[in-house]
Amino acid sequence: MSWLPIPPDSHFSLANIPFGIISSPQNPAPRPAIAIGDYVLDLRSFASGGGFSASAEIQKHASVFAQPTLNAFAALGRPFHRAARQYLQDVFSADTTRPEVLRDNTELRERALLARRDVENHLPMSIGDYTDFYAGKNHAYNVGVLFRGPANALQPNYMHLPVAYHGRASSVVVSGTPIRRPWGQILKDPKAEPKVPVVAPCEKLDLELEMGMFICKENILGSPVPVRDAEEYVFGYVLMNDWSARDVQAWEYVPLGPFTAKNFGTSISAWVVLADALEESKGPGIENTTELLPYLKEGRKDNVLGVELEVDLITGSGNKTTISRTNSRNLLWSWPQMIAHHTVTGCNMRVGDLLGSGTISGAEPGSEGSILEQTQGGKVVLSLASGEERKFIQDGDTLVIRGWFGKEGAYVGFGEVSGRVEAALPLF
Amino acid sequence: MSWLPIPPDSHFSLANIPFGIISSPQNPAPRPAIAIGDYVLDLRSFASGGGFSASAEIQKHASVFAQPTLNAFAALGRPFHRAARQYLQDVFSADTTRPEVLRDNTELRERALLARRDVENHLPMSIGDYTDFYAGKNHAYNVGVLFRGPANALQPNYMHLPVAYHGRASSVVVSGTPIRRPWGQILKDPKAEPKVPVVAPCEKLDLELEMGMFICKENILGSPVPVRDAEEYVFGYVLMNDWSARDVQAWEYVPLGPFTAKNFGTSISAWVVLADALEESKGPGIENTTELLPYLKEGRKDNVLGVELEVDLITGSGNKTTISRTNSRNLLWSWPQMIAHHTVTGCNMRVGDLLGSGTISGAEPGSEGSILEQTQGGKVVLSLASGEERKFIQDGDTLVIRGWFGKEGAYVGFGEVSGRVEAALPLF
Repeated sequence: MSWLPIPPDSHFSLANIPFGIISSPQNPAPRPAIAIGDYVLDLRSFASGGGFSASAEIQKHASVFAQPTLNAFAALGRPFHRAARQYLQDVFSADTTRPEVLRDNTELRERALLARRDVENHLPMSIGDYTDFYAGKNHAYNVGVLFRGPANALQPNYMHLPVAYHGRASSVVVSGTPIRRPWGQILKDPKAEPKVPVVAPCEKLDLELEMGMFICKENILGSPVPVRDAEEYVFGYVLMNDWSARDVQAWEYVPLGPFTAKNFGTSISAWVVLADALEESKGPGIENTTELLPYLKEGRKDNVLGVELEVDLITGSGNKTTISRTNSRNLLWSWPQMIAHHTVTGCNMRVGDLLGSGTISGAEPGSEGSILEQTQGGKVVLSLASGEERKFIQDGDTLVIRGWFGKEGAYVGFGEVSGRVEAALPLF
Repeated sequence: MSWLPIPPDSHFSLANIPFGIISSPQNPAPRPAIAIGDYVLDLRSFASGGGFSASAEIQKHASVFAQPTLNAFAALGRPFHRAARQYLQDVFSADTTRPEVLRDNTELRERALLARRDVENHLPMSIGDYTDFYAGKNHAYNVGVLFRGPANALQPNYMHLPVAYHGRASSVVVSGTPIRRPWGQILKDPKAEPKVPVVAPCEKLDLELEMGMFICKENILGSPVPVRDAEEYVFGYVLMNDWSARDVQAWEYVPLGPFTAKNFGTSISAWVVLADALEESKGPGIENTTELLPYLKEGRKDNVLGVELEVDLITGSGNKTTISRTNSRNLLWSWPQMIAHHTVTGCNMRVGDLLGSGTISGAEPGSEGSILEQTQGGKVVLSLASGEERKFIQDGDTLVIRGWFGKEGAYVGFGEVSGRVEAALPLF
């Protein structure tokens, strides 16, 4: 398929071409790149070395590849992303129509093609607002049971609109960034009266397995985005771990929703998989028999991404357990529906805005996207391969989410999003 | 006091010196300025014309006054803001020690001193994250009664921590920007079963009278800000109207808090009143007899700003009614306490982050900071001076919030934040 050797199990096949921001020991300036096999193509070097000169259209905008984020590239819109991805797929093809660009250009290969293990990844986008949806119906139900009991698990609004809340953009970090166990206000005994909280390191630290989506188009404040046009606003996707302090959340979240329980870190994978690359993965999500309001009605019922997802917990001593396997079809709403709802009031989206899907859980045991669900709030234990047990995440644990679509030799994958939990520091 | 004629009732006395971003017909580039009396001093022109040359320290950083936002100026920190304000107070003093800088410099006066009515204001800061607190206890109680009844009006956490939620930064607009009545999902009859919402223009559009605060210092993710250090993070203050769609809010807000009900527009006043300028207004807020956790304990009980606040409703035909009079002392928490709580988990603040106080209501009738409270959710009517009545805001109404501290001749005021409500457009 490619003249570049790409391992058949690589997430970064020629079918993918995900974009990210890298730096290298030789050049610490953050700059755009694509991942391909075990390599990255440094797009700044590639562009400045004439790599895009075979396409007048891309060449005209090549300055976007000299930026420290992908925002300028994203803002050029889906047709441009498509052209860039197709161009690069051709450049790396075994039967490339442009062999002189890279395959037969030793100097540019040496300058722009770097070993992926040698580069450092940075946040791919400058994030304006971060909104977290709650579209994983199984998760919403499971958590609702734990927080409010089965009778009120799903609120009356749940099947009618994509529930969401505004999240914290400043604490979104790229995969590999350590997560410091947070302090917070906690009510140790919810049944005791009077209710007197303590401030303490979180004892119920959890992950949330999510997909993230970056916005590439702006609407004007006051102008909702019709669901039929919303796909144009989708730049691409990442894996996301929306770390959560469950004990903090339980005490603080009424009546205005989670706040400090979610503001200490949200990890995303380094490579943005373009919207086009996952188009073929789409299919039906969780069935919704509710009659939808017109602004949420899509012409199709199969517009939900189908990404295989796995979560590993790696203990401090390096012992790995895959604690969850699921698929992103376990969502009630498509990304266009989420965008349509987000903007129905006229809310303006900006390039670089990040939307989270909400935690993705399957309906079967072992497919839950949070430990809260797996241990029923800490009531049962999660057994690890090492023989250890967990009720929640311990210091030194590394949580890794992997996601991919497709078959061997043609995977469209994300690599992973990982984060190691470090012990809380003394408060002051 | 000043060689420049300043009307004694001006909010922009020599005691104030608030900073903002302006453009003018002659020069459409947004740039920093201060407001003084009926004038503004264009700081870019002032700096480039040598206005700061009498201070080596300010001159060294004069490039911050050539930026299109105040972020770079803010990031220089409180001692720098203090030096700049004091320098400018001296420059405008009747007994200025530097008469050659402006008073006796006709050319620079003509270039940099512009009539305030001739300039346009822009958002003063590039806003990273926007967090809205809920520190107005009277408001929280009043709204709690309406949404959940008196028994559950204030949640058990309310007196223990500054309740807050993440807001939408993209839709924060500067005073004068029209607000388009939003569409949204609404449950017209909350008692009917099954609960079937409609999508319709908001029928319960409301204002929220708040103070806003801009951040000028960053902490590293994972490092909480101690309450004793939090004052260093306060750049300055604005008035804020956090427009709210009450019917949308009532249907959507459980369990994750307000989302689309608050994402269509938040108006802020144009001029940032520096933290120092309101230091003397501080005094006790609403009493809290709850034993606070150590990270929220301040060495003082009188750290809440005292800003007089008024709300006018101006009908489409121009008839004005002052519908509320209150004071920002009606808050349960100080800004340092809000910062300390926001960051207790290690959440990182960034320069330009905006924090809202939550709606400020007094305890007496006529001092409520929202129409929801004044009309008890639309159950009673609000009588206007024109003889008209309101249950909520109508199309064509302009809502104006004014705020000030101090005495005639030395007011430290905000001017106003105003917004006119325009009729909803057809949805698509």
